[in-house]
Amino acid sequence: MISKNQIKFVKSLQQKKNRITHESFVVESTKNVIEILNSNYEISQLFALKSWIENNKIDNSYSVNEVTEKELQRISSLKNASEVIAVVKIPIRKEMNCNFSGLNIFLEEIKDPGNLGTIIRICDWFGVKNIYCSENAVDVYNPKVVQSTMGSISRVNLYYTNLFELIDKVPKAVNIYGAFMDGENLNDVKIIGDSIIVFGNESNGISKDLESKLTNRITINKKGMAESLNVAVSAAIIINKFCN
Amino acid sequence: MISKNQIKFVKSLQQKKNRITHESFVVESTKNVIEILNSNYEISQLFALKSWIENNKIDNSYSVNEVTEKELQRISSLKNASEVIAVVKIPIRKEMNCNFSGLNIFLEEIKDPGNLGTIIRICDWFGVKNIYCSENAVDVYNPKVVQSTMGSISRVNLYYTNLFELIDKVPKAVNIYGAFMDGENLNDVKIIGDSIIVFGNESNGISKDLESKLTNRITINKKGMAESLNVAVSAAIIINKFCN
Repeated sequence: MISKNQIKFVKSLQQKKNRITHESFVVESTKNVIEILNSNYEISQLFALKSWIENNKIDNSYSVNEVTEKELQRISSLKNASEVIAVVKIPIRKEMNCNFSGLNIFLEEIKDPGNLGTIIRICDWFGVKNIYCSENAVDVYNPKVVQSTMGSISRVNLYYTNLFELIDKVPKAVNIYGAFMDGENLNDVKIIGDSIIVFGNESNGISKDLESKLTNRITINKKGMAESLNVAVSAAIIINKFCN
Repeated sequence: MISKNQIKFVKSLQQKKNRITHESFVVESTKNVIEILNSNYEISQLFALKSWIENNKIDNSYSVNEVTEKELQRISSLKNASEVIAVVKIPIRKEMNCNFSGLNIFLEEIKDPGNLGTIIRICDWFGVKNIYCSENAVDVYNPKVVQSTMGSISRVNLYYTNLFELIDKVPKAVNIYGAFMDGENLNDVKIIGDSIIVFGNESNGISKDLESKLTNRITINKKGMAESLNVAVSAAIIINKFCN
């Protein structure tokens, strides 16, 4: 059973202002929920089908609500709700890591939730820990971002910050890369020491202000006719190169 | 102005059965429409804002309808319609290229429109010409597929076919690759001669039947914790390797 107030509350978390007020966000689908249950994140409520509750180990530290498929669909942000939805506490922001050791990712004004989620998943695959987003990027707790991380959200450190101010604090020994049409061929790039890769907005790319701070311009070798690559696709190709 | 019948017709093309009946599909947004106008595709109707019509060179071979923003939104499949929508004739299917020279892509049961569109865009960037989809894959003329190709749809050959039958016709000299967790590290793969890369369904991967036909198992080197990568992301990393 689910009450009208519960429906209203869970659905309200689709909006950022309500997530901030309630310090909570929503995680959907078995894969994502299982990953969150196995993480350090604090679950406050779980809404699940009877079959799901029977088949999964449930903790006693949070409220579990058995719901019907119809009820689950009512609180879901997905076209087809899965078997389970968790309401999760937004963790306290970690102090920002400013060592920039290893590989670090700067995301400037990434607006598409699928792109941010996919980049988080790519970083988690390659063991990249620190992602720095500009303050006007899409919210990481947006349901579509959470969904497309496929559980990786709990394993990367994501900071929202002023990238222009932050980039001035980067030690000189750290190389700062950005992808352009006229850069060095990615295949020829020799990666030495700590690095930052900057990815820009889906339509406008990296802003001129941030571009002026880069130390290395790189290019993904183009052999066909497409004008550009999707930002998450570029991130995949470049991060793979830097991690191998 | 747009008539009720025109609205009904354009909206009906969001469904595959109607696209088949009318042998037509819809292309939205300036970037995509410009690419289609510059291709060999036959445009039957254009719906555009006054400003767009004034700023763009219009051919006389198709009907141009000046519409308001409100009218455009009514026929759009996008949350926010752009400035222009084209109704385009589905081209006659090309005879299937079965040489398999160079790099070729097999897509088995790709269901997500964004994934198919993104893979088409990746192929167009890297100059890969031939994509073979299983018959139960998402339709390439689905509005979301068209949208996410960003104009690349007109520059690749996409065939829907029975991949099990096709794979038996592949010459022995052509290597057939698929990505698995236990394959050869992609970085160490030596690519010689013509190749096919098979990508599988988003949830289930490559089917056992098709897997048994592969000649090479490959793996994208994993250093972190994510269980898997999105199929378009895997395609980007692997195709980049094969084209460089």
